[in-house]
Amino acid sequence: MGLDTPNHKPHDVLAGLLSGDMDRVNALIRQRMASRHAPRIPEVTAHLVEAGGKRLRPMLTLAAARMCGYEGDDHVKLAATVEFIHTATLLHDDVVDESEKRRGRPTANLLWDNKSSVLVGDYLFARSFQLMVETGSLRVLDILANAAATIAEGEVLQLTAAQDLRTSEDIYLQVVRGKTAALFSAATEVGGVIAGVEEAQIRALHDYGDALGIAFQIVDDLLDYQGDASSTGKNVGDDFRERKLTLPVIKAVAAASDEERRFWKRTIEKGDQRDGDLEEALRLLRLHGTLEATRDDALGWTEKAKASLGLLPESELRDLLIDLADFVVARVY
Amino acid sequence: MGLDTPNHKPHDVLAGLLSGDMDRVNALIRQRMASRHAPRIPEVTAHLVEAGGKRLRPMLTLAAARMCGYEGDDHVKLAATVEFIHTATLLHDDVVDESEKRRGRPTANLLWDNKSSVLVGDYLFARSFQLMVETGSLRVLDILANAAATIAEGEVLQLTAAQDLRTSEDIYLQVVRGKTAALFSAATEVGGVIAGVEEAQIRALHDYGDALGIAFQIVDDLLDYQGDASSTGKNVGDDFRERKLTLPVIKAVAAASDEERRFWKRTIEKGDQRDGDLEEALRLLRLHGTLEATRDDALGWTEKAKASLGLLPESELRDLLIDLADFVVARVY
Repeated sequence: MGLDTPNHKPHDVLAGLLSGDMDRVNALIRQRMASRHAPRIPEVTAHLVEAGGKRLRPMLTLAAARMCGYEGDDHVKLAATVEFIHTATLLHDDVVDESEKRRGRPTANLLWDNKSSVLVGDYLFARSFQLMVETGSLRVLDILANAAATIAEGEVLQLTAAQDLRTSEDIYLQVVRGKTAALFSAATEVGGVIAGVEEAQIRALHDYGDALGIAFQIVDDLLDYQGDASSTGKNVGDDFRERKLTLPVIKAVAAASDEERRFWKRTIEKGDQRDGDLEEALRLLRLHGTLEATRDDALGWTEKAKASLGLLPESELRDLLIDLADFVVARVY
Repeated sequence: MGLDTPNHKPHDVLAGLLSGDMDRVNALIRQRMASRHAPRIPEVTAHLVEAGGKRLRPMLTLAAARMCGYEGDDHVKLAATVEFIHTATLLHDDVVDESEKRRGRPTANLLWDNKSSVLVGDYLFARSFQLMVETGSLRVLDILANAAATIAEGEVLQLTAAQDLRTSEDIYLQVVRGKTAALFSAATEVGGVIAGVEEAQIRALHDYGDALGIAFQIVDDLLDYQGDASSTGKNVGDDFRERKLTLPVIKAVAAASDEERRFWKRTIEKGDQRDGDLEEALRLLRLHGTLEATRDDALGWTEKAKASLGLLPESELRDLLIDLADFVVARVY
């Protein structure tokens, strides 16, 4: 890695540019994750919040607000809100997925227990809610309440859809909106709302976050089949072993011969997996070109994200958000 | 049971008086628990919502608002909000407690799985949040956000405090506020807020709900040691077997001899329980008179609840809320 490579990553440049705001966000997060009575709460939260996540979502809120000329303090509160919602969903996801690792460290449900993960997640969700109420903006509350509902609905949908071969690309998209894009789009949209920019620009910020989140998640699902563990922290085939129907497989199922269909039915729907099945799955994805097709979809969403920003005035922050959209997909080249 | 006995229970009389409003609450609950995409959500919710709970919390909101002369529609939304929050916490509690029965029926985590209980709980919490935003009252949002944080904090506190013999009556009270009283007091307070009554009356409504909730939970914990299963649906000693440190035991620990202390340490802290231990626990509670002392505490809270209502104008609804406070404690005579 070259000496100055880290600074070329757009989220690192963004982090540098927004470091003053981000320091305030981190201070607020530490202050609000405290609990006078239940020390378990900051213990569990700190484990996750301080594990070195990229703070991508709060950065989106800060960048959107600043890009729109916002000069107040509410963007810091909303950035912390968004990070709390994200942390709460991670805690609950790890219980749901029975995960043992997150960001390279043991998960909270493993270090403490499922109970703590469920209840501390609830606490952070309530804290996020208090923070957003402090902004006094009903419109912001509406956006974030809707995002919270979309997130939870998407997660429930995934429970039932993930192992069902009838799952279409449309349903996949809804799951992805719930898992990732709903919070991205709320994060950027509220930045515009508190800055008081015109409706079309608020809409553009929403669309940017939505498309960026979708591209981000599609790439994540793609890396599961073609990443290398050293750079992604994921092992190839985790989703296959966990019988998660993601876009590359959905496309392969749509193009499958009868025999191939039986293979997917056995491995994904019935979960009857044997030695060599992952290799066969990868062969089928390559045979039908679904990894390329999936990457093309991600690229399409990236273009959509970048185009949305055309409605915002030119600025260094806008250019960085454009770079960020490119970077999200560049991970798979 | 006499022919007209049911009508003498204050919550049945309240339900009759508020039946028009309550029908609208139930219709709203059914409408909002729907999910276009994830049928698992209404399935799980209906299992709980339609299990014949008493709808005590939404009734408190309706009664408070009506008692204060409220004539709009927001009390229906807030009553549904409160029931959704309650249902969400029940779903998560059953996961945390690994419960198998709730209201005499198998729990959702048993019928479906823990995942569904966690995620559908999150969905209902988000839906409750959308509903309250629709009222457009930042003060209502503030009250309910604070209640949500107190609920989650109390639950986490219970995780660590329940099996710790150092747990004081103060900590018990905080746990009880989280488990029960925070939602009761928010339910009554928001009724006064939307009706726009004066501050002292809003405070009185809060205090009524707080004291009623505390009395309610203390009685619940007391019934665990002296109820009979046919009328309470609980088996004597469930809390003891689950090593939950509730008020009768906290008082007995405070009065314990060294030998008695060793007994509590073994059975509650270490969870090493043998045949005859429940009988010995009951003997110690009786020896130190802690069941009576606990009942006296509950009665004290009931009196506090009733006194709070002195600030509200006389009305049939006010009298019924006073009766309700008496009835809550009458369960243990």
